[in-house]
Amino acid sequence: MTKENLLESKDFLDNVLSGDEKTRKELADKLDSLLSAGDRDTLRDFFSSIHPADSAQVLEFFTPERACEFITLLDIENQARIFNYLSPHFETQMASALGRSQLAKIIGAMSHDERADLFNQLSPEEQEEILPALAQAEREDIRKLSSYPEGTAGAVMTSDYASLSPSITARAALEKLRTEAPDKETIYQCYVINEQRRLVGVLSLRELLVASPRSLVSQIMNDQPIFARAGDRAEEVASIMAKYDLIAMPIINGDEKLVGIVTFDDVHDIIEEEATEDFHRMGSISGRGESLVGVNFRETSSWLIIQKRLPWLLALVFVNLLSGAGIAFYESTIEAVVALVFFLPLLIASAGNAGSQSSTLMVRALATGDVKASDWIYLLGKEVGIALTLGLGMALAVSMVGVLRGGPEVAVVVGLTMTIVVLFGSLVGCLLPFLLAKLKVDPATASVPLITSIADVGGIIIYFSIATWILHIPATG
Amino acid sequence: MTKENLLESKDFLDNVLSGDEKTRKELADKLDSLLSAGDRDTLRDFFSSIHPADSAQVLEFFTPERACEFITLLDIENQARIFNYLSPHFETQMASALGRSQLAKIIGAMSHDERADLFNQLSPEEQEEILPALAQAEREDIRKLSSYPEGTAGAVMTSDYASLSPSITARAALEKLRTEAPDKETIYQCYVINEQRRLVGVLSLRELLVASPRSLVSQIMNDQPIFARAGDRAEEVASIMAKYDLIAMPIINGDEKLVGIVTFDDVHDIIEEEATEDFHRMGSISGRGESLVGVNFRETSSWLIIQKRLPWLLALVFVNLLSGAGIAFYESTIEAVVALVFFLPLLIASAGNAGSQSSTLMVRALATGDVKASDWIYLLGKEVGIALTLGLGMALAVSMVGVLRGGPEVAVVVGLTMTIVVLFGSLVGCLLPFLLAKLKVDPATASVPLITSIADVGGIIIYFSIATWILHIPATG
Repeated sequence: MTKENLLESKDFLDNVLSGDEKTRKELADKLDSLLSAGDRDTLRDFFSSIHPADSAQVLEFFTPERACEFITLLDIENQARIFNYLSPHFETQMASALGRSQLAKIIGAMSHDERADLFNQLSPEEQEEILPALAQAEREDIRKLSSYPEGTAGAVMTSDYASLSPSITARAALEKLRTEAPDKETIYQCYVINEQRRLVGVLSLRELLVASPRSLVSQIMNDQPIFARAGDRAEEVASIMAKYDLIAMPIINGDEKLVGIVTFDDVHDIIEEEATEDFHRMGSISGRGESLVGVNFRETSSWLIIQKRLPWLLALVFVNLLSGAGIAFYESTIEAVVALVFFLPLLIASAGNAGSQSSTLMVRALATGDVKASDWIYLLGKEVGIALTLGLGMALAVSMVGVLRGGPEVAVVVGLTMTIVVLFGSLVGCLLPFLLAKLKVDPATASVPLITSIADVGGIIIYFSIATWILHIPATG
Repeated sequence: MTKENLLESKDFLDNVLSGDEKTRKELADKLDSLLSAGDRDTLRDFFSSIHPADSAQVLEFFTPERACEFITLLDIENQARIFNYLSPHFETQMASALGRSQLAKIIGAMSHDERADLFNQLSPEEQEEILPALAQAEREDIRKLSSYPEGTAGAVMTSDYASLSPSITARAALEKLRTEAPDKETIYQCYVINEQRRLVGVLSLRELLVASPRSLVSQIMNDQPIFARAGDRAEEVASIMAKYDLIAMPIINGDEKLVGIVTFDDVHDIIEEEATEDFHRMGSISGRGESLVGVNFRETSSWLIIQKRLPWLLALVFVNLLSGAGIAFYESTIEAVVALVFFLPLLIASAGNAGSQSSTLMVRALATGDVKASDWIYLLGKEVGIALTLGLGMALAVSMVGVLRGGPEVAVVVGLTMTIVVLFGSLVGCLLPFLLAKLKVDPATASVPLITSIADVGGIIIYFSIATWILHIPATG
């Protein structure tokens, strides 16, 4: 069996990688039998001929133990490259399944940010076993990088950046980059540091290439570099990098010394994680703390998901008990005109739907920076106009049903209620995110279920108040 | 008034740009009075000393007409750079306010993808007035780039990429890049094309720099480049680029000819837009068509927002009328035990909340690729376990209230209903996104309000069925 017949065509691999079950199983079976038959050469050829990101994906078809058998066939550089692309959960499992000295070799060859992340995920015992097997420089680098709290620029940055001295020539700088290229995360942005390792400028490889070979780095560098601090939030760094289209951003510590860079490929991950976190918060799945982001959902334990979901559901039960209290207050109204119950779910759902629409719009617009917390008065006015129009449109639709179900008086009650509850729900949905943003709480915490529950309570009170008033029914407590 | 006192400190500008109202007004007033006083030099210094992205943000403090007065003080390269960073809406307004020949000059100097986007947003009359003022090569380039449908790779790509012939040496290639650098979007990835302009390889500047100067491009290039087609969806291209950490990806047309590249900075925008679209769909704000993404929310007309929101709200009214029908069917049950209404909002809201949680988790996990449509059976089983646990936990909480409000029999009804409706809501929320993904519809269309409405109808039927059965109340139609 040759490499050609393992990778019959590019389409075959594409199918495997896009999640097609049949071809996936076919490839896994082939690889499995090659390994059992001890055909190391074919396997080595296969994994060397595809991108390490694809190798990582293929390895995750197997158990971590079996994946280790495959990966140890390759040379150490390729092993490290593949480790850079494994999903965190699987990577940790493979790391635990590998021999200690083998793992130390891989860690030595990995990119600096990825290996620090991996190290952070090992158990304290595993960490202690690994450390002595590493070179001292690596040990210190890992310790430094893994000391920054999750969610900060320090936690995502890498320390294998390219640095230059301000006093060398462009020619010497190019020569230095040429030799260092293989070990650096990127050489397209170079950081100019003085003897105290303070960041004094930034120079792109493009500028360096265009510059006259004899000019000094200090003459051609940009001496007002855009930078961030290790303690800054990673998502802030990502949004600055996106704004200025930066390939990499230098990160300095409290002493103004350059300690690392965040690169464009980290930005994708940060933006996606941030959006996922906002999604989860909007759906009442997590609070401000650690969310389900970054763990492979398929493999997350049910218990962890329950722990994330139950507290919110229970909290909302208590908000919704207020709805029950509202109904209890109007029990005699309901007994007098049971037909009113017909419209109850419709009216409170409409208030909730309008509220979830406006909160979704606001939360996302605040997250992407389309609107600012200071815009709230302007947007409130705008939302009143929009909600009134929506409410009137829906009132029109529903009063026709009202005439059929309960006569003209009920139609008036239902139409009027619809207009007011849609307005009420929309305003709650619009204002709560702004209020939270003003209080420096993530607006995404104004979750849709919370807005819906508040709209429910308000909707019930509005509905029965209007009904008692128009239909002249005495309310009882 | 000098530049120093206009830009008192970096902190001042930071405050302005982060949306602080007071400093923003202060800067706008200063700039305004400098313009009225005709102090062009100070203004020119100011806009040249800050990043074009910041200049763009500052210009948007003013009316488009006033912004034109500021920008025309600068040299044409700086004008074009600032135009690259303006928000689409404001950019179009400024373009309309500028003189035709001035606009043609700016368009001539802009990056190829940005100018094609701008051109697309001009009115047909404006487009016709501009075209004759452009050089023929520019005209054709703009026509080509603006011919691709929105949302495709063709619509976001740029045509100012760096290309190399396979037969030149590394030294000659470096020399070519050095001269072309200022005009190219990026020179860090170079595309090797043959005489028919077919893509035959890709070479990074890093590899080129490390290679021996006398080796041929064809010897050192990667001859299996990762590429996409102009008609591919932009978000697919973005996710491939994120997977392989690519700075740029080559785009070919139907004849396999290289027609452009998508760069890493486009990827940020695509990922953010995609997440925003998913948010909007989950919140029932838009369907598959054009959403509110990419328009500045603050400036979007109320009418456009109403057009996006009303159809969904009305559609949901009709789903919710089914809830009414369910209630009408059980009217005699309600008349017999009015206390049941007390728990109605709570129970249907809980079903909806559980459903919105599971649909949010699934929609996002499908969007980020954490789970695949083929995983549905496994995840369904998992969700049953999770939902049963959640339902039992909530049943426990709510049956205590049931004992207080209606005695042990009502407590049993309410507890049993809670367990079943939470299970029902969760399963709907979990399955609908998978069903849509299988049908090749965007799972985000399984919006939370839709799930909630379905859970409402189901919840009502389940609640009153259980009540009639346990409390032995005859149901009537």
